[in-house]
Amino acid sequence: MGNTNMTMQPSLFLLKFSSFLLWRECQGVPPPKMTTEWRSVRLYPIPSIIYLIHNNVQFATLTYVDTSTYQIMGNLKIVTTGILFRLFLKKKLSNLQWMAIVLLAVGTTTSQVKGCGEASCDSLFSFPIQGYMLGILSACLSALAGVYTEFLMKKNNDSLYWQNVQLYTFGAIFNMARLVLDDFRGGFEKGPWWQRLLNGYSITTWLVVLNLGSTGLLVSWLMKYADNIVKVYSTSMAMLLTMVLSIFLFTFKPTLQLFLGIVICMLSLHMYFAPPSMLVDLPLTAKATPEHLVEVSVDRRTDS
Amino acid sequence: MGNTNMTMQPSLFLLKFSSFLLWRECQGVPPPKMTTEWRSVRLYPIPSIIYLIHNNVQFATLTYVDTSTYQIMGNLKIVTTGILFRLFLKKKLSNLQWMAIVLLAVGTTTSQVKGCGEASCDSLFSFPIQGYMLGILSACLSALAGVYTEFLMKKNNDSLYWQNVQLYTFGAIFNMARLVLDDFRGGFEKGPWWQRLLNGYSITTWLVVLNLGSTGLLVSWLMKYADNIVKVYSTSMAMLLTMVLSIFLFTFKPTLQLFLGIVICMLSLHMYFAPPSMLVDLPLTAKATPEHLVEVSVDRRTDS
Repeated sequence: MGNTNMTMQPSLFLLKFSSFLLWRECQGVPPPKMTTEWRSVRLYPIPSIIYLIHNNVQFATLTYVDTSTYQIMGNLKIVTTGILFRLFLKKKLSNLQWMAIVLLAVGTTTSQVKGCGEASCDSLFSFPIQGYMLGILSACLSALAGVYTEFLMKKNNDSLYWQNVQLYTFGAIFNMARLVLDDFRGGFEKGPWWQRLLNGYSITTWLVVLNLGSTGLLVSWLMKYADNIVKVYSTSMAMLLTMVLSIFLFTFKPTLQLFLGIVICMLSLHMYFAPPSMLVDLPLTAKATPEHLVEVSVDRRTDS
Repeated sequence: MGNTNMTMQPSLFLLKFSSFLLWRECQGVPPPKMTTEWRSVRLYPIPSIIYLIHNNVQFATLTYVDTSTYQIMGNLKIVTTGILFRLFLKKKLSNLQWMAIVLLAVGTTTSQVKGCGEASCDSLFSFPIQGYMLGILSACLSALAGVYTEFLMKKNNDSLYWQNVQLYTFGAIFNMARLVLDDFRGGFEKGPWWQRLLNGYSITTWLVVLNLGSTGLLVSWLMKYADNIVKVYSTSMAMLLTMVLSIFLFTFKPTLQLFLGIVICMLSLHMYFAPPSMLVDLPLTAKATPEHLVEVSVDRRTDS
């Protein structure tokens, strides 16, 4: 259960760091807004519960499909996030924005298409149907957790750090419960979990913990001040950037599909975030003579 | 030079068929409009000349790159057609339509990305630079011929059949000149070209001729009553449809990239042709209560 250990450390890091920031904020004037009613606090374990279920579904999916198929199905999360964002947060999206979301998912998938000569070929459509159903469920759960967190962060103007402290306290509790459960299952053969918490930790491991921790803080910030769609765009762009950097840093070969994926994601980004008028207006002509007006009036796009 | 022979027969077929249609039109009332001034007629050999140059560039390109790389570079034609369409025919395109054109090229390319396990791997970026330069030149020439034909067909309201007769007369003359030239080069070893015109013609060959011929007629029609962009969309959709049909008719394996390419091209089609208002307007709410108005006013997309 190295995986649980790996999520335990970042939760603890986030909890400590957010508590510190909250404490600093409490020294300042005005003091941070903190809702401590049970009615509000009781909502904060929900994302942790969803992530716990998601984790189990993820493991179940991986018993049916291989890692690269799982990775490709993971792009479905972009589309499910859009749908749940619309349904639960009641955000209106234009047709073009929906198309942009689908395009982002298509673009990230394109960049992951296996080039020729790679191992484990043509396996994408060859797994049992359960694997694909679980993959879709996994994408829905992951999107649900994101959308629910956004709802929590935005439902009142509490201090971000207070909201983080609540989120990560429950996160740490759930992780701890799991570790204890694992210990009971294993009959305490390896000793209790807190004695093994730092087993095998090197400088790299700590860097990973620091990275996961800071990502967590950034995500909370995004959920409060931006939204889930901004998050899926940043995650996708980060993935593409990582692939491009891998070309220079490692021996990763640049593929045509990576290039196509980047173009698609950039177009999608522009479609989603650019002001609609910039997208659909025809370029203005420098001089508006009657001759020009006639030319424009026969054009297809003036029915807007 | 089977290639020239293969373009000779369809030109002759088109010439005969268009002449017949023109003759029938001449019997009717009112008679077809026909401009027979030299000032107008002299423009009709130009597409044939461009195609002749294009053909030679194509052969030169194929001495540097392999067929599949040439096929992938062929998608550049979509973008160059958009650019020349804008420059020479003075058609205005919105940003979204430009994005749609780029996306169409990306989509057709995606569908052609080699899957894993296919022969001649990773060769896309490994040819001499001249091959790529010639590929770009080839895309420009092909687009230029299309755009120039559109200009010819639309510059006056002459009968479509009269315009076709002019186009294909010059087409046949240029093909003939090439065959004669080839004969001189080959020292008439195989006899003059007209004796070999029907060599090796089977029922399949005639079907191909018929197909190329009808395509030519449809393209003339498209150029007169629609435009070059409609043509690139129809060509791309036809290519994707052919690939899908190959799955059912032959042993062509469905790939992830074909699916992605189809999704991308469909989105591009909708982006280009849908009315802009349909794309960027937010869905209307059934009841316009003040509460709804507030909700809409905080939304990102209302800055239009």
